[in-house]
Amino acid sequence: MAAETLDQIVSLCKRRGFLFPGSEVYGGLQGTFDYGPLGVELKNNLKRLWWQHNVYERDDMEGLDASILMNKLVWKYSGHEETFVDPLVDCKTCKARFRADRLGDMPCPKNPKKHPGECEGELTEPRPFNMMFKTQVGPIPDPESFAYLRPETAQGIFVNFANVLDSTNRKLPFGIAQIGKAFRNEITPRNFVFRVREFEQMEIEFFCHPGEDEATHEAFIQDHVRFWTERCGLSPERLTLYEVPKDELAHYSKRTVDIMYRFPIGVEELEGIANRTDYDLGSHTRDQEKIEITAAVQPNAHSTQRLTYFDQPNKKHIVPFVIEPSAGVDRGVLAILTEAYNEETLENGDTRVVLKLKPALAPIKVAVLPLKKNEPAIVEVAKSIKNSLQATGLMRAVYDDTAGIGKLYRRQDEIGTPFCITVDFDTLGREGDAALKDTVTVRHRDTMMQERIAISQLKSYLLERLV
Amino acid sequence: MAAETLDQIVSLCKRRGFLFPGSEVYGGLQGTFDYGPLGVELKNNLKRLWWQHNVYERDDMEGLDASILMNKLVWKYSGHEETFVDPLVDCKTCKARFRADRLGDMPCPKNPKKHPGECEGELTEPRPFNMMFKTQVGPIPDPESFAYLRPETAQGIFVNFANVLDSTNRKLPFGIAQIGKAFRNEITPRNFVFRVREFEQMEIEFFCHPGEDEATHEAFIQDHVRFWTERCGLSPERLTLYEVPKDELAHYSKRTVDIMYRFPIGVEELEGIANRTDYDLGSHTRDQEKIEITAAVQPNAHSTQRLTYFDQPNKKHIVPFVIEPSAGVDRGVLAILTEAYNEETLENGDTRVVLKLKPALAPIKVAVLPLKKNEPAIVEVAKSIKNSLQATGLMRAVYDDTAGIGKLYRRQDEIGTPFCITVDFDTLGREGDAALKDTVTVRHRDTMMQERIAISQLKSYLLERLV
Repeated sequence: MAAETLDQIVSLCKRRGFLFPGSEVYGGLQGTFDYGPLGVELKNNLKRLWWQHNVYERDDMEGLDASILMNKLVWKYSGHEETFVDPLVDCKTCKARFRADRLGDMPCPKNPKKHPGECEGELTEPRPFNMMFKTQVGPIPDPESFAYLRPETAQGIFVNFANVLDSTNRKLPFGIAQIGKAFRNEITPRNFVFRVREFEQMEIEFFCHPGEDEATHEAFIQDHVRFWTERCGLSPERLTLYEVPKDELAHYSKRTVDIMYRFPIGVEELEGIANRTDYDLGSHTRDQEKIEITAAVQPNAHSTQRLTYFDQPNKKHIVPFVIEPSAGVDRGVLAILTEAYNEETLENGDTRVVLKLKPALAPIKVAVLPLKKNEPAIVEVAKSIKNSLQATGLMRAVYDDTAGIGKLYRRQDEIGTPFCITVDFDTLGREGDAALKDTVTVRHRDTMMQERIAISQLKSYLLERLV
Repeated sequence: MAAETLDQIVSLCKRRGFLFPGSEVYGGLQGTFDYGPLGVELKNNLKRLWWQHNVYERDDMEGLDASILMNKLVWKYSGHEETFVDPLVDCKTCKARFRADRLGDMPCPKNPKKHPGECEGELTEPRPFNMMFKTQVGPIPDPESFAYLRPETAQGIFVNFANVLDSTNRKLPFGIAQIGKAFRNEITPRNFVFRVREFEQMEIEFFCHPGEDEATHEAFIQDHVRFWTERCGLSPERLTLYEVPKDELAHYSKRTVDIMYRFPIGVEELEGIANRTDYDLGSHTRDQEKIEITAAVQPNAHSTQRLTYFDQPNKKHIVPFVIEPSAGVDRGVLAILTEAYNEETLENGDTRVVLKLKPALAPIKVAVLPLKKNEPAIVEVAKSIKNSLQATGLMRAVYDDTAGIGKLYRRQDEIGTPFCITVDFDTLGREGDAALKDTVTVRHRDTMMQERIAISQLKSYLLERLV
């Protein structure tokens, strides 16, 4: 069914501790969000699943974690200093500043009901605004001693190409995967965590022989669609592939395909998968004139390393082609929450909110609940079950006795806990069917089906269904 | 035995891909480092272990992941704008800038053999230099529209106190744990990843009733010593507790104890554990005058939230006291590498470098090696073992056939892989003892002991020894 409005998600996130507006105590800082107790688990689970899929389960991938602050020359030769810009206009009446290509997104401050371009104010001509955050590094107030906060993690991979190659002895094809923060000084952050100033990326730069690039590109598109659908639970009907038209491609891109998701705000990009040819390694390498580079790169006067690969069979240094799958962690979280969100009408007429998360993504895997919290024997068994599940180190288990059982179930449904375990009088064997002694009720989140499982079988029962 | 010099670690890290200098391709950016393929695994394993120890295995802890960019008022009321400073001096001769309290750390640029204070140059009087990085936020070049990169993760926890309390209904005592990047514009970054400008922290703010603070503090000191020794493998002989003298404590700190580790550069802080009283929540709360705050806080004119806890039994809003264990991830990695590093002389006179890492921290858990790489049947069995171990999702397994078996063992020893599995002719059952068919050699990293294990038993054998 999925969420229909962004408000459904925003409200759940705030109420249950998935996401809070950043710096809320001081009125916020536009374009920043803090992940709460449940959000940090969901986000980490997504990152872990991505790493498992792309690094651990492949034989051709290495990991990396480069720093956020990088030498400014990286951004000169990557092209970001010159071209990482949005067009900016000022309203001559209200003096507010807008993105020229997104005028509809922001109301006019003087006339909040009107959008700029619609209001009386005349707009200036658009001019470029660079979206990289800049900061002074070191104690000397020298205008040249600055660095940018990286606007993407990708460049950290390219400039470490030789380091990774030298330390791992990899042969082509192979890739380098990285997850980390990036920063963009968006003119108008909006739509919850969809467009923010601080965000996290999951990026791969996959290096291959020229000529193998097109097939590799296609394979990543298919594989990452599988990742989002089969592993993260996004429904294939809400995913579409967008073939970026030739005339909208960056000059170095041979082909770019975006994986689009139908968010409550519309169909928007979740991941971009680009064939970047030899542009990046070619741009950052020294001795450009001694190497064949097909892309149009600017002359590099500063690089100290040759970012090439020695092709043994042909006895020749080549510049590998690059396929780049680049996904947003926060957009991934938003898509997963959107997809998982369900409001159901129960037989008794009540509404139940349930997050139908894949178990691997659920913040809490199992909740252990006592049927009666003032029955010490029940509480004791429940706590001991929770402790023994927790001790496996393989699942996040919680104990809760702060409400009646119906309310406790609803609370866990709403945050996507796949299993609730209830300890009752039958468990104690004091009354009713003697065969139920030392068994508990396991309740399934999505179906609300309940079954009776022996305590001794719980661990293996859950592990089979959680991985 | 442990590493004796920093160079031993630095050289291994570069050669095998644990850590590279940041932006090396452009001559570097002082105080930044990039984690390579093995480093990112070691670092993530340390972070996961810490999270498991402090969040999953306790019943009184929530997680959080706040943003790096925060409203500047956070740093006004935390006290960082005023007091997060290092004393700075200039040499009147060479114009270089130094930390006044660390003159011995940096050579004079004009006289590289001399340190400032020793050279002829006269030094200016020390003046305060604020170590927070600053950046402009938003498209308007207004001098007031700036934010700092957080110099610690802790404040992200304090300012979310009400959000976490409201969304989780926690009762005192409880804590909030967070792992994330922080940035300090160090005047003289040095000693590899020990003092850098970009680093990662693992911090807890544990909230308790005033009066319970001292016992809670003591318990965290003991528990975190256990974390570093029992779980991370640091030897108790190299750890010491440093009781920060009263006259060196921050004005709000009741007591601070540092866990010190004997690094190759000397005995230095690995983690600080402070009793911060009610200073932080008191500083960031509104209505300060209506609440009892014991610490000396500056008046807060901006906070929109009351950061208090309603003490039900006494029907009263109180400001909890805070115990803060604050550890450096990168220092943790450095300590773990230092401790694990061993150079051993073998019977044949060769030197073996071995990283005796705890299995939970090892970047690669198992390497599967074919005794002969040009024997297809052996290669096939080896690859299938690697794939089946990898498919469990519970361990990082690699296959390697790019050298002779002795060299392959050395390579894995050097990066701390606890187990090597060798597939040989006995495995195939073609020669020798028929009982060895479908068995492999499992070699233990630290003892170099080898034992023969049935392939069908491998998974459970390894899992028992890896968790």
